[in-house]
Amino acid sequence: MNYNVSEKFKNLKPSAIREIFKSLGAPGSISFAAGNPNPDSFPVKEMKEIADEIFEKEPVTALQYGITEGYTPLRELVKARLKRVYGIGEPDDDLIIVTGGQQGIELTCKVMCNEGDVVLCENPSFIGALNAFRSLGAKLIGVPLNDCGIDVNELEKALKENKNVKLLYTIPTFQNPAGITTDLETRKKVLELAEKYDILILEDNPYGDLRFSGEDVPTYKSMDKTGRVLYCGSFSKVLSAGMRIGFLCANKDIVSKIVVAKQVEDVHTNVLFQMICAKYIEKYDLEQHITEIRELYKKKAGLMIKALEENMPKTVSFTRPEGGIFLWCSLPEGLELSEFVKRAGDKNVFVVPGTAFAADPEAPCRSFRLNYSMPSDEEIVKGIRILADIAREMGA
Amino acid sequence: MNYNVSEKFKNLKPSAIREIFKSLGAPGSISFAAGNPNPDSFPVKEMKEIADEIFEKEPVTALQYGITEGYTPLRELVKARLKRVYGIGEPDDDLIIVTGGQQGIELTCKVMCNEGDVVLCENPSFIGALNAFRSLGAKLIGVPLNDCGIDVNELEKALKENKNVKLLYTIPTFQNPAGITTDLETRKKVLELAEKYDILILEDNPYGDLRFSGEDVPTYKSMDKTGRVLYCGSFSKVLSAGMRIGFLCANKDIVSKIVVAKQVEDVHTNVLFQMICAKYIEKYDLEQHITEIRELYKKKAGLMIKALEENMPKTVSFTRPEGGIFLWCSLPEGLELSEFVKRAGDKNVFVVPGTAFAADPEAPCRSFRLNYSMPSDEEIVKGIRILADIAREMGA
Repeated sequence: MNYNVSEKFKNLKPSAIREIFKSLGAPGSISFAAGNPNPDSFPVKEMKEIADEIFEKEPVTALQYGITEGYTPLRELVKARLKRVYGIGEPDDDLIIVTGGQQGIELTCKVMCNEGDVVLCENPSFIGALNAFRSLGAKLIGVPLNDCGIDVNELEKALKENKNVKLLYTIPTFQNPAGITTDLETRKKVLELAEKYDILILEDNPYGDLRFSGEDVPTYKSMDKTGRVLYCGSFSKVLSAGMRIGFLCANKDIVSKIVVAKQVEDVHTNVLFQMICAKYIEKYDLEQHITEIRELYKKKAGLMIKALEENMPKTVSFTRPEGGIFLWCSLPEGLELSEFVKRAGDKNVFVVPGTAFAADPEAPCRSFRLNYSMPSDEEIVKGIRILADIAREMGA
Repeated sequence: MNYNVSEKFKNLKPSAIREIFKSLGAPGSISFAAGNPNPDSFPVKEMKEIADEIFEKEPVTALQYGITEGYTPLRELVKARLKRVYGIGEPDDDLIIVTGGQQGIELTCKVMCNEGDVVLCENPSFIGALNAFRSLGAKLIGVPLNDCGIDVNELEKALKENKNVKLLYTIPTFQNPAGITTDLETRKKVLELAEKYDILILEDNPYGDLRFSGEDVPTYKSMDKTGRVLYCGSFSKVLSAGMRIGFLCANKDIVSKIVVAKQVEDVHTNVLFQMICAKYIEKYDLEQHITEIRELYKKKAGLMIKALEENMPKTVSFTRPEGGIFLWCSLPEGLELSEFVKRAGDKNVFVVPGTAFAADPEAPCRSFRLNYSMPSDEEIVKGIRILADIAREMGA
């Protein structure tokens, strides 16, 4: 039979990163390509203890169907933590547990945007989100980043030029892929623009807990007075990515529709791991655990920045993140990104070309993403030297 | 701010069943409304042992990001079991692990149907699937059931009358909600019609393992010679529903697109439980475990049928399923279904009105669904007596 795939999926490509991910693992290869948390950040012993206790005392709750909104104790604990740590949570807000932050992003667009509506995003941005918006028929318009975060002048220009802008998707803190944090002044201007042009903001904050230098910047959600910010978070970077537990906090009218949309996607999220998250927060010290992850990533980021400073030709620029798991390198004019990435792969060093994160994948790009959370210290030093040699060979 | 929900979700209602589910649990209430497996079907001790071993020996695999296609050993084991038990699996087929059968259904429609395409379904049918198709903008056309399963004459009529029919969604074995199994002759005719009108068949088989009387009927997928059947299965009814592990087997060209669609929904399915399923199949006797569930449900179904035969007025008809977890009751002409359901609820007995399962919820309906897997033996006897009394009071 001849298969006619739907219009929306006919041309959608798998995520370049997840495809690279599959080809990794050859002996001696060094990957800066993943977006994985370091396995040392998984509290294995504690999770095992909790799982044991659940299988012993509440197996039926863990293994039976649950409600779509999520495991109630976890919802309450996440709400309390969001309030305490991020000042998030208005009386009109509600919170739903989702199957990883990815589902929160996809459901938001599904429920709030019609086909053809414009979604603004930082350019570059998280490929999983961009592909979700594409799969729903949204029109993606990228807004460039500068050192302060999203470029507000370019943002206003995009808002003026495009009809049907429904949503701004932003990762304001330790942005993926650029590692940049949008500063407070910029955030205030962005909120003003969102009010002026009456659009929603989807604030994606998977890395917000991972600050290892500098000062916290208030979340959009905590500053929002008009109920237009949806906040998406996740336990992937602080407890486990493989368990697929995220959450979305927004006005209850939006959340109630997202519940319906989630119901048709997967009924509800894995119950045992919702219980594990809840009991971990109750019994152990999540904040102390996060402090330890921050120390680990501070060391790794420092090592990578030092290696870049010592080895890279000065014409290669890179960001200096204050948290998160990525930094962003840019080759000088005249160097071909695809050739650089290919030569790196030939030497078993894997990076993700910036084109993967572009709102318009055809636009010229000379940047690539480096992850420092996964590689070992030795791999960071060795891999950056190899990349620096290649840049030099290519004339940087 | 004024929220404008997307056209597709503006009017979509939450599943009536999942809403009923939330209001259950009052002391003394008897629920025939759920679609839950009996908790005795969860192999708690074995799952605990396996989880322990995974946390001990392979915690990183379980807690780190996985690949979208699913945990490879589980995919291989499911493929082997499908071949052995159901004769399913052509050289061109592939299999993806999904977050419950629900996701397999939703992704199939998303990837194969454009907005406005017609999806044919049995009438009545599984509400979760119907809502998924609605949420994707498909046009739903219901085809009535008869004692042989889907009515082939009505099916051909629907195929002739409707342009753009893309897909037939069917639960041929122990249908939800009707408990009916489509017989072999009918299946052959349905396959012929699918070929003649060049449509896909999505065969949803969550209950197929739960036969407790009669003879197995070959699956559509095992008889399909033209690659037009997608087969969706699940571990929800044989290991655990709360873990959300299902699978979809279809031609590899379709599966490769479904992988892309799943990537944007939730990246991948919970890894630990994929590993638990795989290791359960490797270490324990899944077939023996299923045999025990069949015995349990045989007893419960028998008890419910006996209670119906002994108590219900003869004008109330009901199906006699050979497996699965549901049967389907129909009130005589002149009795108002909504009044019956309300009176039952007032006496703390909960059933799902047939309107919830209708392709057209406005169409007249006098049937309701009864679940026998969850209630205790005492609840079955007591609850059916109460329902019979109400039917009699109402003049049946």
